[in-house]
Amino acid sequence: MTNTPKSETVSERPFQRKHLLGLEELSAEEIRLILETTRGFKDIFTRSVKKVPTLRGRTVVNLFFENSTRTRTSFELAAKRLSADVVNFAVSTSSVSKGETLLDTVRTIEAMGADFVIMRHNCSGSPWYLSQRVQSSVLNAGDGTHEHPTQGLLDAYTILEKKGRFEGLKVVILGDILHSRVARSNMWALTKLGAQVVLCGPKTLIPESFGKIPGVRISYDREEAVRDADVINLLRIQLERQQRNLFPSIREYRLLYQINEPRLAHAKPDVLIMHPGPINRGVEISQEVADGPHSVINEQVTNGVAVRMAVLYLLSGARGPAPAVGEGE
Amino acid sequence: MTNTPKSETVSERPFQRKHLLGLEELSAEEIRLILETTRGFKDIFTRSVKKVPTLRGRTVVNLFFENSTRTRTSFELAAKRLSADVVNFAVSTSSVSKGETLLDTVRTIEAMGADFVIMRHNCSGSPWYLSQRVQSSVLNAGDGTHEHPTQGLLDAYTILEKKGRFEGLKVVILGDILHSRVARSNMWALTKLGAQVVLCGPKTLIPESFGKIPGVRISYDREEAVRDADVINLLRIQLERQQRNLFPSIREYRLLYQINEPRLAHAKPDVLIMHPGPINRGVEISQEVADGPHSVINEQVTNGVAVRMAVLYLLSGARGPAPAVGEGE
Amino acid sequence: MTNTPKSETVSERPFQRKHLLGLEELSAEEIRLILETTRGFKDIFTRSVKKVPTLRGRTVVNLFFENSTRTRTSFELAAKRLSADVVNFAVSTSSVSKGETLLDTVRTIEAMGADFVIMRHNCSGSPWYLSQRVQSSVLNAGDGTHEHPTQGLLDAYTILEKKGRFEGLKVVILGDILHSRVARSNMWALTKLGAQVVLCGPKTLIPESFGKIPGVRISYDREEAVRDADVINLLRIQLERQQRNLFPSIREYRLLYQINEPRLAHAKPDVLIMHPGPINRGVEISQEVADGPHSVINEQVTNGVAVRMAVLYLLSGARGPAPAVGEGE
Repeated sequence: MTNTPKSETVSERPFQRKHLLGLEELSAEEIRLILETTRGFKDIFTRSVKKVPTLRGRTVVNLFFENSTRTRTSFELAAKRLSADVVNFAVSTSSVSKGETLLDTVRTIEAMGADFVIMRHNCSGSPWYLSQRVQSSVLNAGDGTHEHPTQGLLDAYTILEKKGRFEGLKVVILGDILHSRVARSNMWALTKLGAQVVLCGPKTLIPESFGKIPGVRISYDREEAVRDADVINLLRIQLERQQRNLFPSIREYRLLYQINEPRLAHAKPDVLIMHPGPINRGVEISQEVADGPHSVINEQVTNGVAVRMAVLYLLSGARGPAPAVGEGE
Repeated sequence: MTNTPKSETVSERPFQRKHLLGLEELSAEEIRLILETTRGFKDIFTRSVKKVPTLRGRTVVNLFFENSTRTRTSFELAAKRLSADVVNFAVSTSSVSKGETLLDTVRTIEAMGADFVIMRHNCSGSPWYLSQRVQSSVLNAGDGTHEHPTQGLLDAYTILEKKGRFEGLKVVILGDILHSRVARSNMWALTKLGAQVVLCGPKTLIPESFGKIPGVRISYDREEAVRDADVINLLRIQLERQQRNLFPSIREYRLLYQINEPRLAHAKPDVLIMHPGPINRGVEISQEVADGPHSVINEQVTNGVAVRMAVLYLLSGARGPAPAVGEGE
Repeated sequence: MTNTPKSETVSERPFQRKHLLGLEELSAEEIRLILETTRGFKDIFTRSVKKVPTLRGRTVVNLFFENSTRTRTSFELAAKRLSADVVNFAVSTSSVSKGETLLDTVRTIEAMGADFVIMRHNCSGSPWYLSQRVQSSVLNAGDGTHEHPTQGLLDAYTILEKKGRFEGLKVVILGDILHSRVARSNMWALTKLGAQVVLCGPKTLIPESFGKIPGVRISYDREEAVRDADVINLLRIQLERQQRNLFPSIREYRLLYQINEPRLAHAKPDVLIMHPGPINRGVEISQEVADGPHSVINEQVTNGVAVRMAVLYLLSGARGPAPAVGEGE
């Protein structure tokens, strides 16, 4: 992590936040601290005992109002590798279906002793609303079309690991920007860290106002956007979110925006292909590119567990050595 | 816990039972032992490591035939804080749906090495039936309209913590007494411990025979019942349990029985408002009372985890020091 | 375990496989090593702390595409008693329902750091397909009508524990052989170990080719098959698998093939009655036989946890002492 001064150590720069709600409000320094801490946790994965005692006796509750096995499992594994106790609060069978308010549900979870509530909800802003009203740390695991901060962090970490820097990189985010919290969290993180972000997709699927954010540029021309790109981050086409028919058909989208091998010809030779998953093979990404040498899709998944460990560690206010410094257990 | 002689200690009075089926059959002394042990476990919650090694290597199986995320989660957390291994046996996808008998399901769970089976079932008496036939400890987490003993215990603990005693207290249980296992478990515990219990609600929803239990009185007059009350325990209106239209409408119930601020005027100034949750804001309880200074609803939730730890500890026959005496870990 | 030379120890004969896909490809020596290791793990169950630290820091993911609470719970408990972290990957709410390929799902699980993927799938051969493409150890927990190797192993272990040998035993497998992966895994294991296997059931439900496997004989005559049997392994009648009406009715099946007390008269006096569960009381097995002295059905369940611990231990390549040799923790 070449862009972090070596003299700064984790214990000298404690993370001051209690909640992780979005990346828009984090400073570049805070994001860099998370990425640096992530590196330490990722080192653990090469050991046979992939576990540290950092959060032993702490309680993590997964509260997912939208289905997301992959994100929930990633948080669950992150918490277990920190030795926390994890409970999956099953929303579908819970009091929520009996008419309980969201705040009452979360206050109940808090009263049971949850140190961390990891929450996914279809309403933008709901984690922020709750963070004002409960003592537990609230981690946003995706809220409406607002943010998905740990996805933004794991994408940034993956870029840093592969490229060693953010400055001067051209990162293209391609697809349905309008409905994507992944796009928003990426955009905030990457511009703060010094990359140039190009948003590309059908005109109906990119909010024009995003073009005014420093470091962000909009392009409706896939060919122009991909030219000299260092990173292409593909978004999933989520038909369930497009009730207004914002593009004609999947076939149309594929013809215009799918990333396949010929279309990578003018990107940088070492371009990274990223995707938050699950991928639609043959829709937004071709079979060859998904499995090809540029793809870092599976590494993103691995980094997701490490970045979530880092976030839980920093939010806990743990003052012990980070695993990169100490010995783990 | 002012009413427990200081010379008695946990180790001198081991709990002799193997199952927790209901509070009707427990002696006052047994209930007091559980409450005293609860206090020790609650102390753990103030630590950063909210965990003791007491039940390490023991197996707890949650077997819930009715949905109850909050009770199941409370038991799950209690077991994890005792370092037990916990498995949630998913009834909906299990052999039960393939026609297996209840006894065969529980014998299978027992054969897998379950030390504790925590069970909720819509048939009154089913935990008792199983407790006669298996070696595992059976904990009743609610059976039909019979009992919900850990709810009764956590309510008693909450009262003791706030009032320091049971003798001379007027405790009103308000709502649908007929269908409420919470009301029954409360009634048994509180009368044994010396409180005076007043059951109040629509005439159709209170079994007349309850009025003959020593220490219990029935009142159909909410105003009279609430006068000089030390505790008001509100029951949830569960429409799904009232297929016979036992009161005219929710609106009618609210007009006659809702507890709101004006209606608390003649209760004791330090009256406690309790509710087993989830609450119906604006139905059996007003917004102001739910969030007001008399409400101990969230503390009940916290105490629920502690009381369940105490019960698991005592049923396990653990002979080590209770956490209040020893050091935890 | 009288038929294993005493001079061979676990550490001298390490298990060389990475996956457990079926018993057809295992040698008799490999199966014997698993059974021997199982015995050590079963000893742990008599302790109050039923847990060893062997797989601490390893991650086990349950990936069940067919409902099977009992098998999944057995694997979950086995992994927890080895101190592994276990995650149940909920297929119904996962990306699979969003059109992700099986391979992408499993690669995601692998990228999250899963050391073991325990998988049940309705397609025969799918665990084998995945084992060729991922780094994690794949354990087949039932694939289509192909194999269910841990069931075959636990059945073999139960026979060995009760009879002390396989040579010369007559083992009858009775029921729907055609659709049964349990029958197949049993058949492979038992013939390799030296038992004589008799497959019995309606003619429509036994593949004729099985009669050509050395050590296997087909009988359509229940009375003849049961005569002098040492073991009768009953299969569950699974109506959901018989869309072609392969026998006239449940009543017909019961009349011809149900095992009840009178029908055991000519079996060996110490005949074992086995069943993989869940049992249909009054269909393939009578009430009296299910609960009678010959039944080892519940012991099979207990042995299932031990055999799964042994398999996880051996696949992990752990080189430490097996628990029978060492002290556990």
